[in-house]
Amino acid sequence: MDAGKLRHMVIFCLKHESGTPEEKKFLQDSSSILSVIPGVKKFELLRQVSPKNDYDFGLSMEFDDEQSYEKYNTHPSHVDYVEQRWLKEVVRFLEIDFKTS
Amino acid sequence: MDAGKLRHMVIFCLKHESGTPEEKKFLQDSSSILSVIPGVKKFELLRQVSPKNDYDFGLSMEFDDEQSYEKYNTHPSHVDYVEQRWLKEVVRFLEIDFKTS
Repeated sequence: MDAGKLRHMVIFCLKHESGTPEEKKFLQDSSSILSVIPGVKKFELLRQVSPKNDYDFGLSMEFDDEQSYEKYNTHPSHVDYVEQRWLKEVVRFLEIDFKTS
Repeated sequence: MDAGKLRHMVIFCLKHESGTPEEKKFLQDSSSILSVIPGVKKFELLRQVSPKNDYDFGLSMEFDDEQSYEKYNTHPSHVDYVEQRWLKEVVRFLEIDFKTS
């Protein structure tokens, strides 16, 4: 990652049972909604597989700078997604933000 | 990340005060020791900047497959690093492993 850029990640668990259509739909919708918000780069939907923590999924994306990240956070699509989907379907999560050291 | 690959990450805090030579040396040594272990790809030393968790740094690397990851884990350089440096200088950490979903 280049200097000045920011990688935003979140690891999370869903209230949906593994393998259900509800789980699949949440993951698909998360990708389709978030990945096209302006400023989002290198969007990835990931499966968390380490037995050393209790999270099941991960989202990772990069922004060119803090301003782009802030615009994403306040973008109507993101705000709506958080209110209508994230808060209703995610049972726990941890946010992690990286910059180059 | 391509299917089948694995991204290994760890977020952590050091016992060293911020900005000290000891902190700098640990970070530099971690990079120089771990990044050259066979199988390690896309090695990154990162600064964790989200106020929503209490970790200060991150390491991220990718492996072509589970076998490469296992070889890394058991490689003498890694085993020695964990015993001689990690366990003595890291106060808390969280490991996260990702695969494509």
